[in-house]
Amino acid sequence: MSEDPIRFFGLGLGPGNPDYMSVRARKVLESADRLVHFCKRGRRGNARTIADAVVGQDPAREIALVYPVTTEIPADHPDYAAALNPFYEEAAARLLDETRAGRTVAVLCEGDPFLYGSFMHLWWRLKDKVPTEVVPAVSGMSGAWTRAGAPITWGDDVLTVVPGTLPEGELARRLSGTDAAVVMKLGRNLPKVRAALATAGLLERAIYVERATMAEEKIVPLLQLPEDFDAPYFSLIIVPGQGRRV
Amino acid sequence: MSEDPIRFFGLGLGPGNPDYMSVRARKVLESADRLVHFCKRGRRGNARTIADAVVGQDPAREIALVYPVTTEIPADHPDYAAALNPFYEEAAARLLDETRAGRTVAVLCEGDPFLYGSFMHLWWRLKDKVPTEVVPAVSGMSGAWTRAGAPITWGDDVLTVVPGTLPEGELARRLSGTDAAVVMKLGRNLPKVRAALATAGLLERAIYVERATMAEEKIVPLLQLPEDFDAPYFSLIIVPGQGRRV
Ligand SMILES: C[S@@+](CC[C@H](N)C(=O)[O-])C[C@H]1O[C@@H](n2cnc3c(N)ncnc32)[C@H](O)[C@@H]1O
Ligand SMILES: C[S@@+](CC[C@H](N)C(=O)[O-])C[C@H]1O[C@@H](n2cnc3c(N)ncnc32)[C@H](O)[C@@H]1O
Repeated sequence: MSEDPIRFFGLGLGPGNPDYMSVRARKVLESADRLVHFCKRGRRGNARTIADAVVGQDPAREIALVYPVTTEIPADHPDYAAALNPFYEEAAARLLDETRAGRTVAVLCEGDPFLYGSFMHLWWRLKDKVPTEVVPAVSGMSGAWTRAGAPITWGDDVLTVVPGTLPEGELARRLSGTDAAVVMKLGRNLPKVRAALATAGLLERAIYVERATMAEEKIVPLLQLPEDFDAPYFSLIIVPGQGRRV
Repeated sequence: MSEDPIRFFGLGLGPGNPDYMSVRARKVLESADRLVHFCKRGRRGNARTIADAVVGQDPAREIALVYPVTTEIPADHPDYAAALNPFYEEAAARLLDETRAGRTVAVLCEGDPFLYGSFMHLWWRLKDKVPTEVVPAVSGMSGAWTRAGAPITWGDDVLTVVPGTLPEGELARRLSGTDAAVVMKLGRNLPKVRAALATAGLLERAIYVERATMAEEKIVPLLQLPEDFDAPYFSLIIVPGQGRRV
């Protein structure tokens, strides 16, 4: 029985520290013909930087997918989809061509590919057209609660994971009454997120984590962060649960 | 500057497939003097089985911590804490003795150590007494949504993670209105969880995943599972989000 070989990979690289990459991810990273990463114009993507410890820059293997917009347009505005849709369509077509030429293509992903990953927009366009493998990974939030020394859920704790992009009222509503929480996609949403955490009564327990497991990691109780603090995109907030300890 | 060497490890081994172990986990697994795992009487623990691909049975290195009770007593009953508290106290004392004798001790964990892990009960007893390192890992739920081909959160989706041990009304309340969900600790809680998912309107989208990423993996839409199905402990339910795709 011959099976089509896998040509398209969603490659989870973990939260940043290359030692937290899986054995499978390292292997695909070393062997794939094309290494694809998303980035902002003029910058290297975070996922590509995580891979540096394993694979140096090799122009012949690299495909950079440069977002046409990132945070200039709110994601719920019609212009956002109008700009992103052709971007993902063209990227998917290009990667499909690569696989049809017999090459293996690995899309590098920060953390776990199927948790709020840009890769997912390529995946659902290509999954039925080319043999695909998704390699799960340590998520950014796992890296964050581990490095903060803060077990996230005990006993019967409920964990709520929200993107900081939601409106303040919605954030407060979703966070109210949860035992443990993670707020992803922080960046310029920080002031709004802080207000929502206060409304939900979670401010005192919140911990700010930037670049978890990386060299420039920063971990601070949220209450100690200056009011005008400028959070980068690569940051999140955790609120550890307080459930049953026996 | 000399630092105390790490003597106590919480070692996340991932969801089951040994290729999903991190480079760091493999290294500690190969080098630790003692490999500790939790288990039920007369059985090997799941975490120890995951490690089999890397380290064979070696009586001199093994420490099995046998739970005095598991599901015979409900976790909110006073007898549960009365049985578990001395168990964790004695285990912590025993592991502390090992580290004081100069040995490195690694507690093997299924998935990520800080997500509903038994290890946490040892960790908070020992973390201030011995230099400790926690190695994060791919969680069981990441393994499950990856293998189910079901990205868990898109765009602004909110993810709610609940333990199936909660009462039915509480489960239904917590699950209502979420975009995506994971129900952990299934086992004999399955009928109750099914009812709660129905109340929350999530039954049609729910996927049952048993032993994700392992040889005996089973993935079935929840609606196709027989009413009297006997779910093992090592199973969970995912409800993938349906958020913005561009
Ligand atoms: C588009 S989402 C991708 C999440 C990723 N797939 C994961 O599993 O973590 C990007 C967000 O992930 C979070 N993130 C990922 N890795 C992180 C890390 N090492 N430290 C802090 N935040 C991280 C940040 O909140 C960031 O805005
Ligand atoms: C005590 S919790 C530990 C969770 C673990 N620390 C993790 O990160 O997945 C045990 C529960 O995890 C879930 N689980 C862990 N690994 C799994 C797998 N490979 N397949 C299905 N369920 C899994 C099951 O719901 C099980 O009842």
